[in-house]
Amino acid sequence: MNSQQEQRNWKKKLFTIIFEADTRAGKNFDLALLVFILISLALVMLQSIPSVNDRYGPSLNKVEWIITILFSIEYLLRIIAVRRPVKYITSFYGMVDLLAILPTYISLIFPASHFLLVIRVLRLMRIFRILKLSQFVREGNAIVQAMKASARRIGIFLAFVLLLSVVLGALVYVVEGRVNDKFSSIPQSIYWAIVTITTVGYGDISPITPAGKIVASLIMLLGYAILAVPTGIVTVEMSKTFKKEDKHSQACPNCAAYGHDPDARFCKYCGSEL
Amino acid sequence: MNSQQEQRNWKKKLFTIIFEADTRAGKNFDLALLVFILISLALVMLQSIPSVNDRYGPSLNKVEWIITILFSIEYLLRIIAVRRPVKYITSFYGMVDLLAILPTYISLIFPASHFLLVIRVLRLMRIFRILKLSQFVREGNAIVQAMKASARRIGIFLAFVLLLSVVLGALVYVVEGRVNDKFSSIPQSIYWAIVTITTVGYGDISPITPAGKIVASLIMLLGYAILAVPTGIVTVEMSKTFKKEDKHSQACPNCAAYGHDPDARFCKYCGSEL
Amino acid sequence: MNSQQEQRNWKKKLFTIIFEADTRAGKNFDLALLVFILISLALVMLQSIPSVNDRYGPSLNKVEWIITILFSIEYLLRIIAVRRPVKYITSFYGMVDLLAILPTYISLIFPASHFLLVIRVLRLMRIFRILKLSQFVREGNAIVQAMKASARRIGIFLAFVLLLSVVLGALVYVVEGRVNDKFSSIPQSIYWAIVTITTVGYGDISPITPAGKIVASLIMLLGYAILAVPTGIVTVEMSKTFKKEDKHSQACPNCAAYGHDPDARFCKYCGSEL
Amino acid sequence: MNSQQEQRNWKKKLFTIIFEADTRAGKNFDLALLVFILISLALVMLQSIPSVNDRYGPSLNKVEWIITILFSIEYLLRIIAVRRPVKYITSFYGMVDLLAILPTYISLIFPASHFLLVIRVLRLMRIFRILKLSQFVREGNAIVQAMKASARRIGIFLAFVLLLSVVLGALVYVVEGRVNDKFSSIPQSIYWAIVTITTVGYGDISPITPAGKIVASLIMLLGYAILAVPTGIVTVEMSKTFKKEDKHSQACPNCAAYGHDPDARFCKYCGSEL
Repeated sequence: MNSQQEQRNWKKKLFTIIFEADTRAGKNFDLALLVFILISLALVMLQSIPSVNDRYGPSLNKVEWIITILFSIEYLLRIIAVRRPVKYITSFYGMVDLLAILPTYISLIFPASHFLLVIRVLRLMRIFRILKLSQFVREGNAIVQAMKASARRIGIFLAFVLLLSVVLGALVYVVEGRVNDKFSSIPQSIYWAIVTITTVGYGDISPITPAGKIVASLIMLLGYAILAVPTGIVTVEMSKTFKKEDKHSQACPNCAAYGHDPDARFCKYCGSEL
Repeated sequence: MNSQQEQRNWKKKLFTIIFEADTRAGKNFDLALLVFILISLALVMLQSIPSVNDRYGPSLNKVEWIITILFSIEYLLRIIAVRRPVKYITSFYGMVDLLAILPTYISLIFPASHFLLVIRVLRLMRIFRILKLSQFVREGNAIVQAMKASARRIGIFLAFVLLLSVVLGALVYVVEGRVNDKFSSIPQSIYWAIVTITTVGYGDISPITPAGKIVASLIMLLGYAILAVPTGIVTVEMSKTFKKEDKHSQACPNCAAYGHDPDARFCKYCGSEL
Repeated sequence: MNSQQEQRNWKKKLFTIIFEADTRAGKNFDLALLVFILISLALVMLQSIPSVNDRYGPSLNKVEWIITILFSIEYLLRIIAVRRPVKYITSFYGMVDLLAILPTYISLIFPASHFLLVIRVLRLMRIFRILKLSQFVREGNAIVQAMKASARRIGIFLAFVLLLSVVLGALVYVVEGRVNDKFSSIPQSIYWAIVTITTVGYGDISPITPAGKIVASLIMLLGYAILAVPTGIVTVEMSKTFKKEDKHSQACPNCAAYGHDPDARFCKYCGSEL
Repeated sequence: MNSQQEQRNWKKKLFTIIFEADTRAGKNFDLALLVFILISLALVMLQSIPSVNDRYGPSLNKVEWIITILFSIEYLLRIIAVRRPVKYITSFYGMVDLLAILPTYISLIFPASHFLLVIRVLRLMRIFRILKLSQFVREGNAIVQAMKASARRIGIFLAFVLLLSVVLGALVYVVEGRVNDKFSSIPQSIYWAIVTITTVGYGDISPITPAGKIVASLIMLLGYAILAVPTGIVTVEMSKTFKKEDKHSQACPNCAAYGHDPDARFCKYCGSEL
């Protein structure tokens, strides 16, 4: 066995440990990763609380650096272990892995950026996938598929809502702007229109003139009615996706009819055996 | 008739009174229970209102102890009457019955805990079930069934919303945190992101910088759009559940099987004409 | 022609004028009624605005009395004209007609009650029905029918949301009550729970402790998810109602299959002419 | 070639440049238009921000006039180029084109009106259509079609919500009006009822008496439940619209008709096998 083969074997072993969870070592690695991700998330949150940071700041910082260095080593190992490193680096998970370590290094220059470490939360997705929670992943995929299928329609709808918010925001600005200093500019009024049409309704900005209130009421009723649109889109799409899953596309050998229940043994149209 | 048989008869009588509502005594018992539960709920609420508690506190406290002792006796009787006490104690209703008396005793040590007596509201569910409001229970079960069938999908969706809230909350914290003291930490910002994405929008925390408002607008539009997902999931599931109910109208004349589609002409189980 | 017949004719004429809109007189009567209802509604609203009432109060009051007396005469004429007066008086429209005049008389004793005159807005429903806006009424009926069909399910669902709000409200009271004077009692906390679970979110009451915020977040996500339930119920019911309207229950004469599109000329299952 | 023909050719060329995007010149024209619209929108927004307007007001004003004059020239060219100018002027896009320039001229008399220039955002719709984003336009049309089909039902529903808000608003006014100065008049209370029933919930007006809070809770639960109605209407309608789109995949080999159900085996128009 020459050294190249040895190296290949070594790489293969590393790959099964880091990227898979079939072996004992692989499972342990993933569990350790899970624990480290959760610790690092708690860490970032604790660091952002002033009273905690004032007291335990330096210790928390040390732990963060230790975890970041561990994640960096893991990232390098992943690049070494994988057969086509460029494809890994440019993949979604590769990007997430990189974004999970970069902010700590960048924080040496821009301190605030290190809070972007919460991107590490996305690393949890890989863990879920690896730990073979396949049932959940399959369900999740069905949802994602339905979302993707309706993404363009939802996008067009959101663009329409945005256009509407721009026009209505400007309208309210003209109506309210001079007497209500909360509607101080059109962008501000557009922000308010979005807050209203999505039925969020913070109340930090709200109309005070009768005319403004009438326009606001119209926007609310409009938002209430068009909220139905994305729901309709997604429901129809999901109905298709889930139906496809349920009905095993079983055709009758006699009349070729589709649409039989999974427990059907005879064609419901012609009565011949399925 | 020996004493063991006598005891068995006595137990049986007790069981029909406490657990059933077919006899006159059983019905009276359930009605009395209903009244006591409602009184005790009103009591707990009244005790929580400072002005009322200051004036009538001791009397309310006495009534609470009387009801708790009555409920304790009832709980013991239930254990005695039932054939397999352990199964009752560990059942959902057994747990509720216990939780409905425990807080009063615990309040001797931790006074605040006695407000947890509102758990008694769950005892109403048993009453509804016992009083043979069967039509309502059947409808309720259909809803619960549809909810259960879509629970996993909804769970995955909520987990996704939570992940999203963590990332978006941190993003807004980085953008707003330094100038807006309402976004004082990442957990606080995550709380705000949840308030926004679910379109609740308290307004206790709201962005003040243009960048923060743009991010907030994106979160709102996102929340508006993905609100469609759970609705789609539940609608599809309910459509199935309710259809199943409807399907139970047509039985096969040959094999008596139910569950045929409205447009089926042949039994899908035995192939004979419907 | 004796006097009894004369009276009967007179009654019949009155009936066609007041209750129908086929004749010219009937149409004019309904239009006049429409105008008076709208005037009286504007009146009640104007009277409720302090600045307007201070200035024009007495005049507005006079007009209100004139309209009320006109409506009272109309109410008496309706009783005279109709064949079975008791049935009219106890019908929905009869009750509305009475409630539309009572508050003014009662306001002689309790002044505030006269604002209840807005109940007159319900009289508009009769006008819509009478003016043969039949297309709209048919659509409205389809919606009402779907609502009725799902009323029991929606009712059970709302009862469940209420139970949930009671339990969650009490929980937040225990968690927040001592430090946040907005959660001053359990009823108050239940009110907050309803505001939150329905995603209204006024923000007049909001949690301030971390524990309270976590509970609030759970309630929001819960409310976000279960908002899907009534929508699912109504959508399924509407799908049925509207489908029934669209599909003319046309059966194939050969294979007896249902479910053909309105424009179908041949059975889609067996190919024979419909 | 006489002068009339020359003029016709010139007009035709102009038409292909301004109204179409098949030629190079036409595409360039549309892109230039897109840029000018976006600039002018940014301009209007900037002018509405006091701090920006104080500093750069005169320059921004100059740019606005330049763009308005360019748009005016374009509008005139469109009238010249098109064969039936009156039809263009009275068309939706013709109106938008006019409304996109009018406010600037009117602002010479009423300065505030010039903020209505945001109507220019609607001009983007033409650009989208012209740039042959046909896939998106087709999807958008499907949504618009479903909206149109359910417009009457949604309208009836909104009218019903409005009636309900009037009655409930007046009820809360009677209950809360005397003690809560936020519910100062019935129109104000109706505004609050709309804010509540649509689940927007600004919190600028909120009940403070127990009775008011109970009524508010009922309105919220009501709003929560009836929010399902427009969603149900639109979902059912969309399900139809999208199904029709899907149906267009299978054509009859005999009569080439489209619109067959997925489970159809015979053409519903001519009866031949599919």
